[in-house]
Amino acid sequence: MIYFDNASTSFPKPECVYKAINGCMTQYGANPGRSWHMMARQINQKLFETRQSIARLFSIDDPYRVVFSFNATEAIKIIYGGLLQTGDHVVVTSMEHKAMLRPLQEMERSGVSYTTVKCTRTGELDIDELRDAIKRNTKLIGMTGISNVTGTVMPIKEVGRICREKGIQFMVDASQAAGVLDIDVQAMNIDLLVASGHKSLYGMQGTGVLYVSPQAKIRPYVGRVPEEEINSWLFYERYEIGTLNAPGLVGLKAGVDFILSETPEKIRMHEQILTRRLIEGLQGIERIVLYGPLSEKKQVGILSLNIKEKTPQEVAELLDKRYKIGVRPGLHCATYAHETIGTGDMGSVRFSMGYFNTIEEVDLAIFALRNIAKS
Amino acid sequence: MIYFDNASTSFPKPECVYKAINGCMTQYGANPGRSWHMMARQINQKLFETRQSIARLFSIDDPYRVVFSFNATEAIKIIYGGLLQTGDHVVVTSMEHKAMLRPLQEMERSGVSYTTVKCTRTGELDIDELRDAIKRNTKLIGMTGISNVTGTVMPIKEVGRICREKGIQFMVDASQAAGVLDIDVQAMNIDLLVASGHKSLYGMQGTGVLYVSPQAKIRPYVGRVPEEEINSWLFYERYEIGTLNAPGLVGLKAGVDFILSETPEKIRMHEQILTRRLIEGLQGIERIVLYGPLSEKKQVGILSLNIKEKTPQEVAELLDKRYKIGVRPGLHCATYAHETIGTGDMGSVRFSMGYFNTIEEVDLAIFALRNIAKS
Repeated sequence: MIYFDNASTSFPKPECVYKAINGCMTQYGANPGRSWHMMARQINQKLFETRQSIARLFSIDDPYRVVFSFNATEAIKIIYGGLLQTGDHVVVTSMEHKAMLRPLQEMERSGVSYTTVKCTRTGELDIDELRDAIKRNTKLIGMTGISNVTGTVMPIKEVGRICREKGIQFMVDASQAAGVLDIDVQAMNIDLLVASGHKSLYGMQGTGVLYVSPQAKIRPYVGRVPEEEINSWLFYERYEIGTLNAPGLVGLKAGVDFILSETPEKIRMHEQILTRRLIEGLQGIERIVLYGPLSEKKQVGILSLNIKEKTPQEVAELLDKRYKIGVRPGLHCATYAHETIGTGDMGSVRFSMGYFNTIEEVDLAIFALRNIAKS
Repeated sequence: MIYFDNASTSFPKPECVYKAINGCMTQYGANPGRSWHMMARQINQKLFETRQSIARLFSIDDPYRVVFSFNATEAIKIIYGGLLQTGDHVVVTSMEHKAMLRPLQEMERSGVSYTTVKCTRTGELDIDELRDAIKRNTKLIGMTGISNVTGTVMPIKEVGRICREKGIQFMVDASQAAGVLDIDVQAMNIDLLVASGHKSLYGMQGTGVLYVSPQAKIRPYVGRVPEEEINSWLFYERYEIGTLNAPGLVGLKAGVDFILSETPEKIRMHEQILTRRLIEGLQGIERIVLYGPLSEKKQVGILSLNIKEKTPQEVAELLDKRYKIGVRPGLHCATYAHETIGTGDMGSVRFSMGYFNTIEEVDLAIFALRNIAKS
């Protein structure tokens, strides 16, 4: 199968990831943070090394501030639950994943309010509109790094500057951007960084990452623990509940190390080449409608499209059955993003490319889409 | 290394578990529940088969009511958060893991109260004391199946009967008991069942299970979703947030199928033989203090002990360094259980045996402990 669903989860992973997970499970699969014996010490050490690799990738000073979660959705829940209180206001963009929006809808019940800044039809953010959305009680601005619907690269650095200037916490959902964009939490003034482990970081499903900067004060996720007790804990222990996905996190280190060795620049360049080729190959084909900025400088790895008179589901089924091409049809967990780009009714067919996709695969996709559009 | 830390996480796993996880990751590692292509359909189908195997193990009628979590701690959080409201009262025992107790301490802030029924010094529950703890507003009784400190088997069936009689919801934390005791949610009147995937179910870390019976009404965990929308969802979707640990859950099916094929009876019998041999081999050795019922009928797989004039940490270090035996020293995440059995100050050295431990390993442990006690 030709896999163009990397924004759901990357596939395949680098070989070193499979090997690391299997090695952990078969050789030192103890429970981290619980016991003291040789295997337990070994897994503790390995997980700390994962924190170190992640810290390196995002220019984080202190690896103890790298917290593990089970996915980005949980990490966002930890932030909202630990940071927001009655009376607080949050600004998000209309390109966010539901993982960013749904907890805010829930928290409206407890007196938290939020504003969704509508992006342009290509999924781009107007910085002035964002500025206008800021209120006296705005505590947090939350934004994705790359839209999971259009691949639009969001202006992290600019928004980070505004946040620092106004004394607002800045949270970035890097689930699509981690390992592809060059994210530097210090240079970009990111207070809270969230990422899936299993997408562009090449780890396994069931892993997520949360960075909490010294400026961000979020309450512990583990529940009510006396202050003197919690002060004696390691920083990350305040936010990690129950047994971690330890083998998965060992695999995540392998994934992040793979990125560090290839470099995010090289990965991004490859994805840009594929994106440009797909865009250029599809532009001008009758009945095919493309979404997003349609420029590989403003859009990485993802292209949403539709074929007139066909539902996204029909197109995806034809791609799957006739051409063995796997894509994702529908609303992609981001209803507002689809409203923004004008596909609120049925969604789109999303091609999401990864580092292991090739030019030949993209050309086959173009060939297949041309045929489907004609039929 | 001789691994006696199976109550933290089982090690090794059956070979079929490693194979299943690796097969999933390398062959059909798509994101479940998101896309539609061949690989996505395959992983969806596999995860449903995991639900079916778990349903079979616990005599659950409807596999759609088997919810996946990332660990038992999260599953308990889902139950408390979705079930309890201001004014509700909960009864738990003093042998519970902190995963059961800590969220209740947190919820005291929002007007939920609870009573902890103190067990005997051997970790056994006095049913009359439990009855006395029930109040007019008791909504839930929560209890472990097997104590993670003493291995004491708790009277699930009896407590289930009381719950049904009084119209109280019954939650069982089967993290130590699943796959070892014969758990039948219907015969035992269990409304809510929680289990780790990575302990006695032989799955990988980062997997947990939650069964919600038709009698148990718990609010969705995914946040605020309009009722008409959520009614169109599959039952388990209401409680699963973000991307699941899909390869881990495929491995969990292999682990549960291994149990179904070996049978919980055979597994329990093996662990009983080891437990009895360890107890008998240590009884009467000067300076060794054993905790729990000290009968393999009342205690499965776990033995806590101390050596006079040595801290649990010292004993564990000697076992690790001199004999390459891995155990867990300390408080085992269950402070009240230690207070109950009289080890509240320093905890104990815990031996926890699994299906892959042998009589020879137990004999070596006895030999090692005898030497350490003498030294």
